[in-house]
This record gives sequence, C-alpha cells and structure tokens, in this order.
Amino acid sequence: MIKAIFFDIDDTLYSTTAFAEHARIAALEAIRAHGVRPSLDALQRELGEVISEFSSNYNNHFDKLLLRLTKHDVPQVNPAILIAAAVRAYHDSKLTHLKPFEDVPAALETLAKTDLIRGIITAGLQIKQAEKLLRLQIYSWLTPTAIFISDQIGISKPNPKLYLRALSDTGIAPEEAVYIGDHPLHDIDAANKVGLNTVFINRGTKHSNLEGKTSPRHTISNFSELLTLLETEYKVHIPRSA
Amino acid sequence: MIKAIFFDIDDTLYSTTAFAEHARIAALEAIRAHGVRPSLDALQRELGEVISEFSSNYNNHFDKLLLRLTKHDVPQVNPAILIAAAVRAYHDSKLTHLKPFEDVPAALETLAKTDLIRGIITAGLQIKQAEKLLRLQIYSWLTPTAIFISDQIGISKPNPKLYLRALSDTGIAPEEAVYIGDHPLHDIDAANKVGLNTVFINRGTKHSNLEGKTSPRHTISNFSELLTLLETEYKVHIPRSA
Repeated sequence: MIKAIFFDIDDTLYSTTAFAEHARIAALEAIRAHGVRPSLDALQRELGEVISEFSSNYNNHFDKLLLRLTKHDVPQVNPAILIAAAVRAYHDSKLTHLKPFEDVPAALETLAKTDLIRGIITAGLQIKQAEKLLRLQIYSWLTPTAIFISDQIGISKPNPKLYLRALSDTGIAPEEAVYIGDHPLHDIDAANKVGLNTVFINRGTKHSNLEGKTSPRHTISNFSELLTLLETEYKVHIPRSA
Repeated sequence: MIKAIFFDIDDTLYSTTAFAEHARIAALEAIRAHGVRPSLDALQRELGEVISEFSSNYNNHFDKLLLRLTKHDVPQVNPAILIAAAVRAYHDSKLTHLKPFEDVPAALETLAKTDLIRGIITAGLQIKQAEKLLRLQIYSWLTPTAIFISDQIGISKPNPKLYLRALSDTGIAPEEAVYIGDHPLHDIDAANKVGLNTVFINRGTKHSNLEGKTSPRHTISNFSELLTLLETEYKVHIPRSA
C-alpha cells in the first residue's frame, strides 16, 4: 500500500519548455518593437547563450542580452525601457500561457479524493516554483504540508538527500511513496537511490531523451496512465466520476 | 521661450497612492484566502509598518509581514505559497489598475505635437520606473533620450544635482525648462534650487500638504491647466484638435 505520491513540477505538470519559448519570444518581440534591430531568430540564439551562461534562475537575462549587442543594433533610448518592455511581456505571458498539461487537472482532482498525500519535490527558487503551482491552478489539490522546494531546503537535485528530506518530513517510508518526474538523472536516478517507486513521464520534452544510469520502475506518457498505474500496480482505489 | 518640459512620475502622472492601496489589498486578500487569519485592516497596518521600516523599494515586504505574525495567525502551509500568492496578486493588479490620471494622456499627446522635449526626472528603481511609463501607455509621447531615473544616475531626490544632470545631458538651460511634480520638497524645492521653472501639481495626493521651503513658480491641479499655463505664460503654441 502506498501513502503518498510526489510530483516534479517542470515539464511534468506543465510544459516549461513551451511556456519559456512563448514568454521569451514575447519579450524579444517587445524589444524589437522598441527598435532593437536583430531578427527574432538572432535574438533567440543570443538569449539562449545568456541563459546557458548565467543559468535560467539568474534575474538579469535581458540586461545581459542588451550588453552583448552592438551599438548599431540597439536604439538610442534609455536601456531601462527596453529591459522593462521585455520583463513586462515575459511576466504578462504567465497570465495567458502558464497552463498545466491538459491531462493533469482531472488526474490531480481525482487523486485529491483519495487518502494519498499529494506532494511536490522540485528544484528551483521558492517563490518562482510556488507561483507556478498557483498559476497552474492545481495547488488546491495538493497537500499543503508536502511541498518541498530545493531553495528552501538547501539541497538540490540530483542530490538524493532532497528526496530523503521530503520523506522524513512527511513521515513516509520510500517504499510507501511514488515519485513522478521527467528527468532521467535528476528525477529517476536520484529517487531510485533512496528507494522511491519511480515513474518516468515521457512527454517528449527537453530532458526526455537523456540517458539515466538506472531505469524507472514505470514509464507513462500522461496522467491518465498514472491513475491506471496506481490502480493496477499499487491497488489505490481511484474514484471514478459518475 | 522654453525648450523642454520634465515630469515627475509618481502621483504626478498616475496615482501611486491609489494603485499601491489597490495592489496591497489584493495581495493581502490573497493570503487571507489561503488562511492567514488577521483582518484586512490589521494586515494593512502591519504591512504599512513593514514598508515604512524597510522602504517601499525593498523586495521582500510579504516575507517580512509573515515573519511578524504569530504562529496562530498563519496557516500550516509552505510560506512560499503565501508569499507567491501575495506577489502574484500585486503584480496582476498592474494590468488592471496602473492607469494615468485621466487628464494626462490627452495633454501628453498634444505636447508630443510641439517641438518641446518631453522628459522624465524620477526617483526610483530603473526597471520599476520604466515599467510604469510603459504600462501607463504614455511612453510613446515622451522623448526617449530624456528619461532620467535616479537609480541609473546615482543621485536621488531631493539632491538638485539630479536635475542638473538632466539639464546638462539634454543641453537645456534651467530657464528653458519647466518641471512638474507633486512633492513640495523633493520636486519643487530641489528644482527651484537649480533655477528650473517649477510647477506644483496639487491633486490632493500623499505629499500635497507638505510644507516646502520655497514656493513653486506655478500651481496647477490637472494637466489641462498645464496646457493653458504653457500657452499663456511660456508662449508655447498648443495645437488644438479640430
């Protein structure tokens, strides 16, 4: 019998890749509308380099992007206007484009009717990760005391101690919990190390094709399959809507 | 003959006071919806103290607010969720409630048809102040090379050197420019010191009743009066719409 199910957030509950691409294009089009000259393609490549050099959780991507461009390519305006235009467009994208994968809400709503703890184990900045849970409109189906964010714990993926902390804080043994993630190394290898029942969700996203050192216990491609898996392999009673 | 007109932003172009009140109430109602127990009134008073103790440009007001509450008043949830709920509500308020005073757009649109430089001299954080100009939808009527933000210059109000820098960077003599602001000390006294033609805009906002050491050259209560003033006192040709 399992007592808990823990989820990764990024590319598991929503398409981080698709959202980031949309938001970045919106931001780059905003600075192009203010006179920044390179093509969208060229700016996307440059921004991609900034993100890979300074990390995705760095706060000043657009400042750095502008610094990299030649004088000729940047209009004679206050750079704060360009950066604010980009940041505004990026943030406003959250209202329209931060949506869960379409199979996620119904599955979480169903799981919320069971006795299972529904938790999160995620690597990232605390407010940024918490904001995703709220904007995705799935937080109400989760167990409020079972949200674990690396930034708040001082341990990040792929360190298996992050998973151990989530288990000890909730009082759950590894074999009593299922963990679902999209990253063969950070999610599957790391959670396998502590003995969690691992589920690899293969949605063909950014990390899907990485080679982990270990195999997931299960592989699924969406959250409908997750419900079936929990029912058949773990004897969870899944309430079916009338 | 004058060549330039410079504007303050906060409580001159839009009601900073009304926006902040709306956004803070939205943020506090969001955390109350997540189970934070004190009344809206009590939370507003506490947040007011945080802002006065840590300054309005400090980034972690809601973190501090939660730290000040007793355990009994805060639900047993991850505090990142509460902070993210507050920040989200605050930011989303910008889309609906960051609007210029109703007399501002038409006046700026009219001034943009004259030869006057239309500049900004503002104290604040660069991206935050630039974002206001964009969200207020007035930036297109300003002169892009005449936006001066204290954060980018290292000089803040009420230091008159901020005004001198704006004048020297635009190549304008003080007597050739008009400056409009709502703050008797930071705007009027400081701009008087460098010899600008000062216009105090009295909209009955937060700082309107402060006592400055000097008098403004002119006092107006809205931007329609500004156009009339420029026409009658400074012989600016104001194009009238057909």
